[in-house]
Amino acid sequence: MTKQTALSELGEFGLIERLTKKLTTTNNSTVYGTGDDCAVLEKNEHEYTLVSTDLLMEGIHFDLMYSPLKHLGYKAVMVNLSDIYAMNGTPEHVTVSIAVSAKFTVEALEQLYEGINLACERCGVDVVGGDTSSSMTGLVLSITAIGSVAKNNVVYRKGAQENDLICVSGDLGASYMGLQILQREKHVFAQAGAQPQFVGYEYLLQRHLKPEARKDIIEQLKIAGIMPTSMIDVSDGLSSELLHICKQSNVGCKVYEEKIPVSEDVAKVCKEFDIAPLITALHGGEDYELLFTVPLESYNAVKKIPSVHVIGSVCAQSAGSVLISKAGETIALQAQGWNGFRE
Amino acid sequence: MTKQTALSELGEFGLIERLTKKLTTTNNSTVYGTGDDCAVLEKNEHEYTLVSTDLLMEGIHFDLMYSPLKHLGYKAVMVNLSDIYAMNGTPEHVTVSIAVSAKFTVEALEQLYEGINLACERCGVDVVGGDTSSSMTGLVLSITAIGSVAKNNVVYRKGAQENDLICVSGDLGASYMGLQILQREKHVFAQAGAQPQFVGYEYLLQRHLKPEARKDIIEQLKIAGIMPTSMIDVSDGLSSELLHICKQSNVGCKVYEEKIPVSEDVAKVCKEFDIAPLITALHGGEDYELLFTVPLESYNAVKKIPSVHVIGSVCAQSAGSVLISKAGETIALQAQGWNGFRE
Repeated sequence: MTKQTALSELGEFGLIERLTKKLTTTNNSTVYGTGDDCAVLEKNEHEYTLVSTDLLMEGIHFDLMYSPLKHLGYKAVMVNLSDIYAMNGTPEHVTVSIAVSAKFTVEALEQLYEGINLACERCGVDVVGGDTSSSMTGLVLSITAIGSVAKNNVVYRKGAQENDLICVSGDLGASYMGLQILQREKHVFAQAGAQPQFVGYEYLLQRHLKPEARKDIIEQLKIAGIMPTSMIDVSDGLSSELLHICKQSNVGCKVYEEKIPVSEDVAKVCKEFDIAPLITALHGGEDYELLFTVPLESYNAVKKIPSVHVIGSVCAQSAGSVLISKAGETIALQAQGWNGFRE
Repeated sequence: MTKQTALSELGEFGLIERLTKKLTTTNNSTVYGTGDDCAVLEKNEHEYTLVSTDLLMEGIHFDLMYSPLKHLGYKAVMVNLSDIYAMNGTPEHVTVSIAVSAKFTVEALEQLYEGINLACERCGVDVVGGDTSSSMTGLVLSITAIGSVAKNNVVYRKGAQENDLICVSGDLGASYMGLQILQREKHVFAQAGAQPQFVGYEYLLQRHLKPEARKDIIEQLKIAGIMPTSMIDVSDGLSSELLHICKQSNVGCKVYEEKIPVSEDVAKVCKEFDIAPLITALHGGEDYELLFTVPLESYNAVKKIPSVHVIGSVCAQSAGSVLISKAGETIALQAQGWNGFRE
């Protein structure tokens, strides 16, 4: 018998690397395959087509105990559109596939679609297809987003240059702390039947349950005449995304703890939970903010965009990818990857 | 409380109709949204982009007791490419999303990907992206296929004209009978531990486990200079697909039982199972043959293509959609739709 390797030995990134290493692209129309936020395909003389896809599984990515179906539909679309924006593109179409058990009602699915339609409307996107299936078990949502980008404007993960500034939009860690609160209240309810206490946590809950793709940031960069050299959306946590950019650009990076944007709401709740706010920003994930690099000369222009923060700079690969703590220590960034296969 | 409607009340087609009726398309780049084999999107001056997506769930669409993973990967790709061919297009890219439980090994997933890659290779398609997730329960496969078609050559379900000839490729019902055999042998094995008997059933099993998208038919139609007026692939059975074409083209149809292609292997096994072969052709499904209409003047050209059968003709909507039995009876075609939501 040939060697059998448990999925947990590799984790998600390792598994993807192993499964995709044998893939070769043969079509001239394939400009960029796996390895970025989107696939990049030839469209016409001036534009590329962008494609991104996500699979959301009940019990893994969401819990229907506390995810309203309308929010779930909204989020499922937004996380895909976020990938199109992360290539500096414009989303135009989505396909929506769902699998549901017979215990769902038509009205429940209509709520899910209300959220899907709302997210599409906000970003000017059409639902153009999909598939509907029954499921023996949980709810499954698979969304594919399709968009376009002018060839001159496409931004990959691989373009960061030494001395570029590293920028991130919004704030980080709120989605993760929103999830902690939802899980705590679910636990309390299960133990004691107590009604959940959500007052004061609205911002965190909204960030987790109903995130927004940063269409506005892409628009403001355009208005300001700034072209990022590299970009990625923050789905797995700042640390992991920084390492993606560094690896694919063959550079290192230096980011400063004191510059990393964490909201007061997050700081407050982190005390309650005895978690360092920095950890939620580095490893929390599901923020759907944009992380990007810009040339040093864009400093004045980028500083003027509200909610964009310069958190560090790109350096030579040999200098490593590090965080400078508030105390002045140099700490190597780690991809504390998610490993959903661990039992 | 508002009315709650069970999914089984609507079935798959009814549910899709209800969920998609509120969808409006706002982008100029959306040429045709839901309701055909693919979505049709603006690509460039001469071409459209085609998009099709399918969600395959363990326990609903396949049973790992008898579906080898390599075949499953192959089939999952082929059924999507079949949708691109059904628009008279050329598939170019797929995205592949999978969710698996931790009990799978890396080597098992590599087998799945071998099948995926083989199907892609055969049709000149690149895997350009996807998503990998863990699953609390069964295996989930979500594939999106992207292709293109010259604007002059796109074929919809809606173009059938009165007096057109109705054609179908290959033969029908074999996949369904292949499934019956697999289920019987599984049952026998569960009851008595007897080794499955598959000798003599190879053709039927192959048609079920490893179907081919009919790329060759599209190529031969092109060589023969035949442009179908409407086309669809046979995934739910001939009857259901004929009704799709008739409804969307506002026409009726008359097909002849004696002309419907059913292989000898199917006829033989139907006797064993005491099933009328006609039923497997009309309602079996998963044949992935192409059903299309051509103008009457293409008769001589289309007759020359091996494995294409003329089975009837298009008539006025008022004449209904009917089958003429071997005994000369006129029977209304019914969409004995699949209803996976029935418990």
